[in-house]
Amino acid sequence: MPLLSLRQSVLDANLALVRAGLVLDTFGNVSGMDRTRGLVAIKPSGVPYDGMRAQDIVVTDLSGKIVEGTLRPSSDLDTHLELYRSFPSIGGVVHTHSLYATSWAQAGRPIPALGTTHADAFHGPVPVTPPLTDAEIAGDYVLNTGRAIVRAFALLDPVAVPAVLVAGHAPFCWGPTPAAAVHTAIMLEYAAQLAYNTLVLNPACAGVSQALLDHHYLRKHGAAATYGQQRS
Amino acid sequence: MPLLSLRQSVLDANLALVRAGLVLDTFGNVSGMDRTRGLVAIKPSGVPYDGMRAQDIVVTDLSGKIVEGTLRPSSDLDTHLELYRSFPSIGGVVHTHSLYATSWAQAGRPIPALGTTHADAFHGPVPVTPPLTDAEIAGDYVLNTGRAIVRAFALLDPVAVPAVLVAGHAPFCWGPTPAAAVHTAIMLEYAAQLAYNTLVLNPACAGVSQALLDHHYLRKHGAAATYGQQRS
Amino acid sequence: MPLLSLRQSVLDANLALVRAGLVLDTFGNVSGMDRTRGLVAIKPSGVPYDGMRAQDIVVTDLSGKIVEGTLRPSSDLDTHLELYRSFPSIGGVVHTHSLYATSWAQAGRPIPALGTTHADAFHGPVPVTPPLTDAEIAGDYVLNTGRAIVRAFALLDPVAVPAVLVAGHAPFCWGPTPAAAVHTAIMLEYAAQLAYNTLVLNPACAGVSQALLDHHYLRKHGAAATYGQQRS
Amino acid sequence: MPLLSLRQSVLDANLALVRAGLVLDTFGNVSGMDRTRGLVAIKPSGVPYDGMRAQDIVVTDLSGKIVEGTLRPSSDLDTHLELYRSFPSIGGVVHTHSLYATSWAQAGRPIPALGTTHADAFHGPVPVTPPLTDAEIAGDYVLNTGRAIVRAFALLDPVAVPAVLVAGHAPFCWGPTPAAAVHTAIMLEYAAQLAYNTLVLNPACAGVSQALLDHHYLRKHGAAATYGQQRS
Repeated sequence: MPLLSLRQSVLDANLALVRAGLVLDTFGNVSGMDRTRGLVAIKPSGVPYDGMRAQDIVVTDLSGKIVEGTLRPSSDLDTHLELYRSFPSIGGVVHTHSLYATSWAQAGRPIPALGTTHADAFHGPVPVTPPLTDAEIAGDYVLNTGRAIVRAFALLDPVAVPAVLVAGHAPFCWGPTPAAAVHTAIMLEYAAQLAYNTLVLNPACAGVSQALLDHHYLRKHGAAATYGQQRS
Repeated sequence: MPLLSLRQSVLDANLALVRAGLVLDTFGNVSGMDRTRGLVAIKPSGVPYDGMRAQDIVVTDLSGKIVEGTLRPSSDLDTHLELYRSFPSIGGVVHTHSLYATSWAQAGRPIPALGTTHADAFHGPVPVTPPLTDAEIAGDYVLNTGRAIVRAFALLDPVAVPAVLVAGHAPFCWGPTPAAAVHTAIMLEYAAQLAYNTLVLNPACAGVSQALLDHHYLRKHGAAATYGQQRS
Repeated sequence: MPLLSLRQSVLDANLALVRAGLVLDTFGNVSGMDRTRGLVAIKPSGVPYDGMRAQDIVVTDLSGKIVEGTLRPSSDLDTHLELYRSFPSIGGVVHTHSLYATSWAQAGRPIPALGTTHADAFHGPVPVTPPLTDAEIAGDYVLNTGRAIVRAFALLDPVAVPAVLVAGHAPFCWGPTPAAAVHTAIMLEYAAQLAYNTLVLNPACAGVSQALLDHHYLRKHGAAATYGQQRS
Repeated sequence: MPLLSLRQSVLDANLALVRAGLVLDTFGNVSGMDRTRGLVAIKPSGVPYDGMRAQDIVVTDLSGKIVEGTLRPSSDLDTHLELYRSFPSIGGVVHTHSLYATSWAQAGRPIPALGTTHADAFHGPVPVTPPLTDAEIAGDYVLNTGRAIVRAFALLDPVAVPAVLVAGHAPFCWGPTPAAAVHTAIMLEYAAQLAYNTLVLNPACAGVSQALLDHHYLRKHGAAATYGQQRS
């Protein structure tokens, strides 16, 4: 059963998302990609988290063809696939309707970098896509959602800012693994709530300086990271 | 005991409402209707949820005459009955004082459709009734509450928008079954909190386009629904 | 041990206040009065709730003289006593620093009656005292807090509105028993949060009509109450 | 193992911080100082709280030289050390990214003394540092954070106001022991949320009078304290 460990990591990440309180009902899904095999594992559509098993996770190739699994994949599959095709370094994607990140998405505003908590996870504001056009909605809506995300990163590094808000919808996050993408989703929701509160207290808040943004981001990310026990 | 399963489904739905955190004190009640028999089962009035049993659920006919049960029915019974009489397709009604939906009801504002989370459950804004007049309050208040709801749906399909805010009071939700109505109450509370946050961030937010509203609603509802595993 | 049952009811009410999430640290206290004996039982000062026993509850007379108990009574004792002396029908008093009620107290604003949830517990706005003067603070501060409350009810019935906000401080609630006062504290916190949210959504909200206020209050209180199972 | 009890108290305080809900991910750290030995014990950097043991706590001298422990100390160590060097009466320091205190820090606003809950813990507003300059960030950032805090207390008594907001970052708190510093962090978060709510309700709120601030603070602190059971 060669794909069991990918499926298991995707199952674990889906359950971690629930434990983190970021899932309402069956909203929310996590996928993971095995870059060597070119295969993506994703949560099945509309299935309750309670009792979900590794074999319920659906495996497809990058075109969406089901390779393993008997259930239908998440209805958001084509957005995930577009991200895997366009961002070659990522190995996990998370979609939630978490409360504060979704509120920013509905408001159509990027989440500004107002503090070091944000900077520890995101090297700049979290962007928001433009609203999808009627033609994009009438066409391949889920794929077009992915395309809108990719366009929003035309001038942005998806590794440095591993999250996006889809206007009128909700956030997507990603990372090297499904677990890392879940971690980013947790950080995003917290940064979103901090930024909400901050702007209520100070609507003119300009946010952190570039120097502070750089310092905190680079402290935890990249070759020169100094945080934690992992340094050689 | 022919009505036991209706009573059990109503008991289960009342307890699910509590587990969902939508109930304060003894505020909140769920009823269910067996359309074949023309009978409605509803929570008893002011009874604690802890230890409530299926036989505590009161069964009445559509005129409110008690058919089974020794306790007094919920004081909101006549509102529920008016909804069952006027909306012939529904089989469950929920009333809560859940925090954000009630805040919108107190503010006298409909909940606008600001995102796809809302659109997944409601095919348009959730309307608010006008305030009841002094004469309506002095008369048969509970029945008049139901009548005000029905009037608010004169031009609206109660299947497409299965919830309402009673001005100065709180929400009512409905659905094909008691469990479905509870699910709608959960979605309503979440949509209400998202909309609250969204308007704090962007008071001018215009909400989703008609195309996006239609797409998300019809994805989960009606003959062409594509979400979940239930498709043939 | 004749006072054990009073002490037990006061202990139970203090623990219920904690379970209701209305207590931060050791802030918060409940007392009860046995009107026949003229004795008041109250939580000891600054003692953790965990492990508190009925014999830790301190019993005093209406002048504050300790009748039973080895611990020092709550530092708010003299406020409680002033309420018992001035409001002869009450048998329980609760003080909390619960989040939303305290926010209104700090804002120096009465909590308006914006909905039926409020009206179910309070027959009108919950008043706020004026700030205590420097002389009142320098004098017998705790007693003067009670006096400020009593003055705020010069034209109000403390049975119809069983709660007050002390400006810059926090709420006090009361009722016929310690348990009833705790129930009122729970309702107050919820009404305070609903009113906060409501005014964010609609700063001009005028609140419920007198007819709706009367209807909901009298439905649950007084000789003509119709709510629940207790009607003869 | 002479330092075990210091390490244990620091471990206990770190876990208490988690139980209080003030920690997100691995954000947050507590240290303690043994003034007799001149040694500081602090949480290791980026280590999960689950399974953390007393021997994982790192012990350094006041210059940051590791005296005991095999893990790397918290990346915030130099801020803690600067506080121990500059505030000679303190024996515990806490850093969190708790939601409301961090929101005030991001907004760049001191937390005003708007009520007695605040006054019970802080004898005046909780100050905010100026933003660190680019030079301070490019230099010894963590040490410079401590220096910015110390400068903010040039005219303030760190015993009377045992907390600070670092602009664009988050709060630091302190006290005579690690446990006392954690208690202050809990009070700070609650005061921060109360103040946030209060200003939403009343943006012009002027806060408590000096007399009320003094009364409440001195009731719980200093030689004349009257609160609790500890009075001789």
